[in-house]
Amino acid sequence: MTAADRRPVPVDPETLHTSPVYAQGMLAPAGPLLFVGGQNGTDAEGNLLDGVEAQSAQAARNVLAVLEAGGTDLTHVVKLTILFVDGVDLGAAYAAVMPVWQGHRCAVSGMRVAGLGRPGALIEIEAIATVPAE
Amino acid sequence: MTAADRRPVPVDPETLHTSPVYAQGMLAPAGPLLFVGGQNGTDAEGNLLDGVEAQSAQAARNVLAVLEAGGTDLTHVVKLTILFVDGVDLGAAYAAVMPVWQGHRCAVSGMRVAGLGRPGALIEIEAIATVPAE
Amino acid sequence: MTAADRRPVPVDPETLHTSPVYAQGMLAPAGPLLFVGGQNGTDAEGNLLDGVEAQSAQAARNVLAVLEAGGTDLTHVVKLTILFVDGVDLGAAYAAVMPVWQGHRCAVSGMRVAGLGRPGALIEIEAIATVPAE
Repeated sequence: MTAADRRPVPVDPETLHTSPVYAQGMLAPAGPLLFVGGQNGTDAEGNLLDGVEAQSAQAARNVLAVLEAGGTDLTHVVKLTILFVDGVDLGAAYAAVMPVWQGHRCAVSGMRVAGLGRPGALIEIEAIATVPAE
Repeated sequence: MTAADRRPVPVDPETLHTSPVYAQGMLAPAGPLLFVGGQNGTDAEGNLLDGVEAQSAQAARNVLAVLEAGGTDLTHVVKLTILFVDGVDLGAAYAAVMPVWQGHRCAVSGMRVAGLGRPGALIEIEAIATVPAE
Repeated sequence: MTAADRRPVPVDPETLHTSPVYAQGMLAPAGPLLFVGGQNGTDAEGNLLDGVEAQSAQAARNVLAVLEAGGTDLTHVVKLTILFVDGVDLGAAYAAVMPVWQGHRCAVSGMRVAGLGRPGALIEIEAIATVPAE
């Protein structure tokens, strides 16, 4: 890894619990940032998939697609915000996201909300990523 | 448009549904960023307006006022997060925001929440924007 | 204060209500950013403290710990997002956070949600901060 990679660096204070799944903080080097808007479980035609597992995996794949289109990738993700509609099985959602996410540790916030912009959507994932130097 | 404008660039993967209203992602060039705190439908005296249409339009105007005071404008907005109190008529809210927003496409997340920091507030809009080079 | 401090600058338009507690916007100078993931009221062993006062103060202390580990501090915080589980006493939460927060004004969004990633958590605080030049 060189400086040109502009990969963010996990920050985990000794005085806090360290998680294998997320980082307590993430340091983003100076440079351009890609903001990925809230992605839900819709396919290429804009149709919403059925159920929390299918929607969660699709939402994660959609984040990856925006990262790629923006010239960056999963290893440059600084922050994830994961919105669940209240009542969703979080275990099922995480289990569906994990294989797509390949264990990248970054700063995360998760919350249960009353609903999302799109009716029927059960999960929405937004992301912020650094972009490698050209 | 020159590089000095530092305008963010919409990112819309071919494998995702493309929306006329929002971008799937937004690339922010390196440089200063303006973070606009959650704006609700309060006027210059801090009084909350009545109803979702009035509050939505005022919240959008307040975002524009902070952008202007920070030396930037709507065309530099990278990301919007729109919080609605559960039960609010989203159609009415969007209809009120649209004329203020003038069709600027950027990354967006929307969610229905149980309440906002200020009692009685029905909508809150936060924004992140790049700032033009001087 | 020199430019090397990279401290963010509050933006408060004359046409908006000015608050002694938060800034309407915050201008972050170009450079690295630290993203602090959602911090809740867990201690160093990962145990969740009891009650909203204890959780709120601990969540704020955890944010400070991540800032320090990332090479920055409270005076460089640009944006706070404060998530409360619906039903929490906001007055008690703010009263517990204030002594830790030492009056730093920055951009803020607050919302009441149906729940957080961790069961039993009543409050979660995430932050974005600039980082002083070395």
